[in-house]
Amino acid sequence: MTQSQMNFNNVNIPEKLVPDNYLQLGLAAQRSKQRSFKELLEKRKLPENGWSDERIEELVHMLASLDSNNYPHKVGLGEREARIACKLVARRHYNFGHGIGRSGDILEAQPKAAGSTLLARLTNALILDLIRGIGLPSCAGCFLVPMCTGMTLTLCLQSLRKRRPGAKYVLWSRIDQKSCFKAITAAGLEPVVIPCLIQGESLNTNVDLFREKIKSLGVDSILCLYTTTSCFAPRNIDDIAEVSKLSKQWQIPHLVNNAYGLQAKEIVHQLESANRVGRIDFFVQSSDKNLLVPVGSAIVASFNESVLHDVASTYAGRASGSQSLDVLMTLLSLGRNGFQLLMDQRGENFIYLRENLRKFAELRGEIVLDSRCNSISLAITLATMAGDQMKSITQLGSMLHMRGVSGARVIVPGQNKTIDGHEFIDFGSHRNNLQVPYLTVAAGIGITREEIDKFFDIFSKCWRQLFQTKNDKTMSLLETTIK
Amino acid sequence: MTQSQMNFNNVNIPEKLVPDNYLQLGLAAQRSKQRSFKELLEKRKLPENGWSDERIEELVHMLASLDSNNYPHKVGLGEREARIACKLVARRHYNFGHGIGRSGDILEAQPKAAGSTLLARLTNALILDLIRGIGLPSCAGCFLVPMCTGMTLTLCLQSLRKRRPGAKYVLWSRIDQKSCFKAITAAGLEPVVIPCLIQGESLNTNVDLFREKIKSLGVDSILCLYTTTSCFAPRNIDDIAEVSKLSKQWQIPHLVNNAYGLQAKEIVHQLESANRVGRIDFFVQSSDKNLLVPVGSAIVASFNESVLHDVASTYAGRASGSQSLDVLMTLLSLGRNGFQLLMDQRGENFIYLRENLRKFAELRGEIVLDSRCNSISLAITLATMAGDQMKSITQLGSMLHMRGVSGARVIVPGQNKTIDGHEFIDFGSHRNNLQVPYLTVAAGIGITREEIDKFFDIFSKCWRQLFQTKNDKTMSLLETTIK
Amino acid sequence: MTQSQMNFNNVNIPEKLVPDNYLQLGLAAQRSKQRSFKELLEKRKLPENGWSDERIEELVHMLASLDSNNYPHKVGLGEREARIACKLVARRHYNFGHGIGRSGDILEAQPKAAGSTLLARLTNALILDLIRGIGLPSCAGCFLVPMCTGMTLTLCLQSLRKRRPGAKYVLWSRIDQKSCFKAITAAGLEPVVIPCLIQGESLNTNVDLFREKIKSLGVDSILCLYTTTSCFAPRNIDDIAEVSKLSKQWQIPHLVNNAYGLQAKEIVHQLESANRVGRIDFFVQSSDKNLLVPVGSAIVASFNESVLHDVASTYAGRASGSQSLDVLMTLLSLGRNGFQLLMDQRGENFIYLRENLRKFAELRGEIVLDSRCNSISLAITLATMAGDQMKSITQLGSMLHMRGVSGARVIVPGQNKTIDGHEFIDFGSHRNNLQVPYLTVAAGIGITREEIDKFFDIFSKCWRQLFQTKNDKTMSLLETTIK
Amino acid sequence: MTQSQMNFNNVNIPEKLVPDNYLQLGLAAQRSKQRSFKELLEKRKLPENGWSDERIEELVHMLASLDSNNYPHKVGLGEREARIACKLVARRHYNFGHGIGRSGDILEAQPKAAGSTLLARLTNALILDLIRGIGLPSCAGCFLVPMCTGMTLTLCLQSLRKRRPGAKYVLWSRIDQKSCFKAITAAGLEPVVIPCLIQGESLNTNVDLFREKIKSLGVDSILCLYTTTSCFAPRNIDDIAEVSKLSKQWQIPHLVNNAYGLQAKEIVHQLESANRVGRIDFFVQSSDKNLLVPVGSAIVASFNESVLHDVASTYAGRASGSQSLDVLMTLLSLGRNGFQLLMDQRGENFIYLRENLRKFAELRGEIVLDSRCNSISLAITLATMAGDQMKSITQLGSMLHMRGVSGARVIVPGQNKTIDGHEFIDFGSHRNNLQVPYLTVAAGIGITREEIDKFFDIFSKCWRQLFQTKNDKTMSLLETTIK
Repeated sequence: MTQSQMNFNNVNIPEKLVPDNYLQLGLAAQRSKQRSFKELLEKRKLPENGWSDERIEELVHMLASLDSNNYPHKVGLGEREARIACKLVARRHYNFGHGIGRSGDILEAQPKAAGSTLLARLTNALILDLIRGIGLPSCAGCFLVPMCTGMTLTLCLQSLRKRRPGAKYVLWSRIDQKSCFKAITAAGLEPVVIPCLIQGESLNTNVDLFREKIKSLGVDSILCLYTTTSCFAPRNIDDIAEVSKLSKQWQIPHLVNNAYGLQAKEIVHQLESANRVGRIDFFVQSSDKNLLVPVGSAIVASFNESVLHDVASTYAGRASGSQSLDVLMTLLSLGRNGFQLLMDQRGENFIYLRENLRKFAELRGEIVLDSRCNSISLAITLATMAGDQMKSITQLGSMLHMRGVSGARVIVPGQNKTIDGHEFIDFGSHRNNLQVPYLTVAAGIGITREEIDKFFDIFSKCWRQLFQTKNDKTMSLLETTIK
Repeated sequence: MTQSQMNFNNVNIPEKLVPDNYLQLGLAAQRSKQRSFKELLEKRKLPENGWSDERIEELVHMLASLDSNNYPHKVGLGEREARIACKLVARRHYNFGHGIGRSGDILEAQPKAAGSTLLARLTNALILDLIRGIGLPSCAGCFLVPMCTGMTLTLCLQSLRKRRPGAKYVLWSRIDQKSCFKAITAAGLEPVVIPCLIQGESLNTNVDLFREKIKSLGVDSILCLYTTTSCFAPRNIDDIAEVSKLSKQWQIPHLVNNAYGLQAKEIVHQLESANRVGRIDFFVQSSDKNLLVPVGSAIVASFNESVLHDVASTYAGRASGSQSLDVLMTLLSLGRNGFQLLMDQRGENFIYLRENLRKFAELRGEIVLDSRCNSISLAITLATMAGDQMKSITQLGSMLHMRGVSGARVIVPGQNKTIDGHEFIDFGSHRNNLQVPYLTVAAGIGITREEIDKFFDIFSKCWRQLFQTKNDKTMSLLETTIK
Repeated sequence: MTQSQMNFNNVNIPEKLVPDNYLQLGLAAQRSKQRSFKELLEKRKLPENGWSDERIEELVHMLASLDSNNYPHKVGLGEREARIACKLVARRHYNFGHGIGRSGDILEAQPKAAGSTLLARLTNALILDLIRGIGLPSCAGCFLVPMCTGMTLTLCLQSLRKRRPGAKYVLWSRIDQKSCFKAITAAGLEPVVIPCLIQGESLNTNVDLFREKIKSLGVDSILCLYTTTSCFAPRNIDDIAEVSKLSKQWQIPHLVNNAYGLQAKEIVHQLESANRVGRIDFFVQSSDKNLLVPVGSAIVASFNESVLHDVASTYAGRASGSQSLDVLMTLLSLGRNGFQLLMDQRGENFIYLRENLRKFAELRGEIVLDSRCNSISLAITLATMAGDQMKSITQLGSMLHMRGVSGARVIVPGQNKTIDGHEFIDFGSHRNNLQVPYLTVAAGIGITREEIDKFFDIFSKCWRQLFQTKNDKTMSLLETTIK
Repeated sequence: MTQSQMNFNNVNIPEKLVPDNYLQLGLAAQRSKQRSFKELLEKRKLPENGWSDERIEELVHMLASLDSNNYPHKVGLGEREARIACKLVARRHYNFGHGIGRSGDILEAQPKAAGSTLLARLTNALILDLIRGIGLPSCAGCFLVPMCTGMTLTLCLQSLRKRRPGAKYVLWSRIDQKSCFKAITAAGLEPVVIPCLIQGESLNTNVDLFREKIKSLGVDSILCLYTTTSCFAPRNIDDIAEVSKLSKQWQIPHLVNNAYGLQAKEIVHQLESANRVGRIDFFVQSSDKNLLVPVGSAIVASFNESVLHDVASTYAGRASGSQSLDVLMTLLSLGRNGFQLLMDQRGENFIYLRENLRKFAELRGEIVLDSRCNSISLAITLATMAGDQMKSITQLGSMLHMRGVSGARVIVPGQNKTIDGHEFIDFGSHRNNLQVPYLTVAAGIGITREEIDKFFDIFSKCWRQLFQTKNDKTMSLLETTIK
């Protein structure tokens, strides 16, 4: 094989430049790096320990140099030659310009871009290795799609339609997250909403209704069953095991929206075991929510490698390689241990957040809603605070936001919403007929204990302040009445 | 309005640090920069002249500092907080992480990311200003979609379906580019292929057949008419004026694939005038092919602003902001004059390429196929070379490729291909019944005269070599025969 | 004062770009940053906590924009206009090009470069604040010189000569570090070597001999007394208090080579108290050894601000500003707490290293040489190992080096050396008549516990291996003899 | 020789990652790069054409990886381990930290830093190749010193003193540039000023006075003759040929301050021929003024390699490698042709500046002072403007400065100055008894025609404005008088 990057293999560095014994020491120090490159490329496994920035960039530069736009003597006579006008842009993309895939298949090798091809495939291999390592050993394959999770779910639905052209219904366990639902309508399919069962304080999958709908609509008219693993409390993870069984029994595809489920070992394990007892065609997750990269891509994974190619060949065009680059660099930088550590810390921080939230609630006559199967998100009631002026409680949300808290959401009854012609009662609560307002918070991957502490600090202050205001109002109302 | 970035407004820099008269000179020098920022943000117009790298990066850093993940005292309690694990990744994205839009509408402002929102909208405004300036003053709006052109065309089709749920046919003037066709099937729609008219050596739109199909299929069953402006010779730009008239007459939407048409003033002018006499709903173009950024996004534009929102709200999720950043930086770096210069040079280089190709052809008994309405791509026959061994001529393509020429394509008869169940005869030639093989080359934006010269150098050598081989083979065949 | 950097002060950002309430949140988040800039420039104090990379770079870019080479409309008609040919070079210097000072005074403001002037002076102010904070409150001033410690010591000597043109002797307490000595000869002065007192196992300053020499040579012929604080064990820090008293008594300047003494609180305190009881004109330290920046600069500090100007005005030309930039960025990145933490950790690691070295020594019949007043470097004898083949023990040094240990030095008797005409017996040991070879190691700032552990690992292995080899040799020698 | 950087030599990249034929094309494209690295290191010659940024950085990263601080498993037990605390600082130095040379010799290899050693020596080799190529084929060696030109001249003087310890006088042809003079006093030597001959309007070397002084002071008491090549008009380049003859005749060293003389072929040729007829020991030039890098280093060159080592071994300590890096990157980026082009353009721009200045002068009754042997700087009288209010003319300088013109200097009679005890009459004019004020401008390397045009624009406006003011004053004075 030909030599590509700089090395001293055939270079006779004269003593005038550097004494040979000094040089030899420097060269010897490169061996472990060289070995790590070799292993990465030959075995396509995530390194145990993270790499240094320098090592990562060396790999990336090397890959980029294999793309035709970076050949020293390129002659571009086509309509797409990956010319980059702005030096800053070229630099931030390490001179990658050609994107990945070929028009009509995101997984195909790109003839003009051996480096980008390597980049994309290596990234997919490392993600697969990661997924298998954290509790999904049966995962057969996966790939990164440089689109958001919603559009990627749409892509999966589109690929399923090619297999089942007559089917038009998607049986969907209600979750009040807009793009999850819009993924269906964007594909021009007909959503059939399966409301959650309200059991005590928590919301669970209505498996029986799934079964009934299959029977009533007819298997052939149903494109797929569509469940969600990660969601805001008090909704729980869907009962994917039971839905998987239905899927297997009736031979209807099963699509799982695993938006931010890769970060929680409980969810990961349920995916693995659901597949063992039933059928999951695809599970789709956001890269940014799970792998701490900027927003912009999702990962389609499957327990069955062949169906992945259907999805890949549904993507109509050549795709951005930038998101693969982000994930590759991040995974190399973390290593398997780094990612495992983040997962473990997240788990601990979730417990810490829950315990503190419970204490907070108890002191104020509120409760933390029971959602035993949700290991990321928590909900605390705002009953005493809201009283009979429920809508005013939304103010709490903006008070928190103004003080730097992002991601805490206040849910109040009565927020109806129509999306693409479908009406949702009490949107945001995943249910109809919500009675008590509540606030949700989540312990996402990367959260720190300091953030949690600061949150309770700010939450307490806002609570006090809001309570004061409310009492003042009541007082002045009373006074007015008296007068 | 509050002050955000560092400045010396309220800072009393002591004389101990720097004499005031020296400082004043330095401060005065900042005024033109400050003015350029103010103008850009208030008027949202492309600057006449390109900005320096430093100025561009200052703007970008400033925008990024407005996103919540970059607040010094942020407290993230949600499932998506734009945490970036790898410092290198954060750096290459200038700490942007939140993406753009809100789940379910790519054009909505993102509450967690004022800076990203500004970035995305400013970019769209500058693209609009550019489009209007280069010959499309009637363009009413446009926006960047961080997906490839094909997927973006799919998105347009999906948005049209919401308006015309009963329609399922897309009338498509044949062009042999895979993702253009797959854009239809990906959306689950039914393509109706309108073959080109073969007129002399060139391929033109069969407007009559469009009319006939409208009548035979029925207006209501037709989702839209679908044409293409930029393509490989000898196919010409579609007759978009006439198709636009049909569109207007029958009130059927008209979608134009303008893949790399923004770079050629001839195409731009035809779009403007077609809209004047008829109807174009969307024209979609690749960012990388027209604006010299890495592959990864497309631009949807329209002469009617309101329909754009339908497309934007079809995108199911929050989108990558990285492609907007690339385009913003590139446009600021080029300025209006820089882009105009690139367009002018491309025009000149196209003529240079054509003249030289004609000379080359004449000397070798070949011809440059007449495609008067194609101002980017050119085709030269390979008749004498191919003789009766047509398939062997494909070797020419790989010979060129091996020598660093990318983008030149050899088309030979007999390459049939089935895409999503539709068979295409002589795929690559945009027609059935191709007789003479040919080679296409294009003068894309950014091409240099040096590249063209080098190409003819290499082309001549390959030609000679291939001719030699062929004659040798013929000789030895003759010899064999004689013997 | 005029506004300089981008901000939104006078910019009316239209709602079309971003909703005002989102923007306001982003702007509010900038206030703490803005406050930190204001404080830094107005108070010139080291921030308590380190700054983020983004904040540091914003400050640096802002400073650079004040230099004339970065004015948008500059017209350079001089012989030195800070034009930078290579973009990569410009980028790595943040477009600083003008250097600092004016020909003939490194502390003067540079009229063409208000930003560089600010940079240099701010850096000096922060260093001063740091030095005072870690235990030298009496320090009156200091500045960074972009030359190595040795050349900076020369510069101090040159400045002293201007005051005492008739004096030519420098009384120098022997320390076997080449550049410390060459600093004298480079200045064209006459070194008078004061050998150390050998007291038990340690080497201390011979104060009496200093006194004698002053008397015998005559006060007027002596330019200065010259001591050193940081050195390899078993030499101790010089008795700077006593030498300071002599200096005060005889009114002879006193120059202290404090090469890496800023990192050790013991040394810092001795400097402070020596000045209280006597006189120190300058103490000079390496930036790289103390502040963890690349090699290339030193810091001259004094308890008397006026004498610093003599040194500054001795530097003949305009100096590099690059080293000031390194130190500024490093200090802002660490903050006061970050530096203090590094100092504390160093102190703990020194104790850890000493304890482990003692255990190591005990087990092998060696001792750790007593050098009670050296809190950085340690020496362990190699007596048993060396036996009668002392020179062979140098092999140990290269064995360690080969295995990645740098900085450990083996000192053996008999290494004489002549420097600029002066002969040193047993060079490296700071003394004549060395009997027992030894190895020195140091716990410098930034050392980690992991490094120390790895060192003992490697040291043990080398020891074993060397011992084995030696015994084998002895055996074969015995065998030979027997035969 | 061991392999160091990443390459695919021993890596078997699986087909799953990239098809082998695509990969081979990418690998083949690396060969010219690999060849350029080999040539650079083996032949140590400046490449003909400049390298791309990517190639330069690949080389630089590779060199840095050879330094011990970048070994993956380093264990630092010394006092100087090139630890870099701030990531930004490490990044901007490409992780170089160890500096160059060894304490006491800047040219020695540094055992801890094979890469830095290579960097420094390669840089020196390329500078030498450049110097020889532009007209100094007899140059025997040179090296970069990371100090300003003045301090580097001091270093040369210090090294000469070691050879001639009894000599104390430096015979110096007057040039009014502070650091040039201070270089002598900094070294503790005695300057003997040789005033220029005033011949017509130009100032030339008084060779006879040099000869007389040699005789009167005595050869042995003279350390060296000290001349200057580049200076502000109307002073001319010194007559270095004649001084070289004296130097050879009397065997007194000859030091040439060639501050910005490397950019002008006239000066370069005079150096070459002066050495042929006489003797030049060292010629010293600024890196920033000649090679367009940031301020911070100088180059000592000689026609006799051995004397260079005396200078190198006079530098007392380990030096910054940062300046070598700047020069290396710049030279690789320009290539021989790039530098030659800059020199040629400078020559043309000098003529352009001179012609325009003459026209300007003629129109206003001024003259361009004749300084035939100055090919960089020009002087125009301000006689008519100044009239009898000579001092007011200095205002012109600050008017120009305020409008962005830097480097233009106004010289007026009567500016006396004392430097280190030596008084200079009419400082700035290189002479006593100046009568007519004048303004100097220079065409330095890198100047553009646009700058020259803008200069005359601004100059004209200022001239008009100042003239107006003056007349107004005269008028009002007249009026006052009349009244």
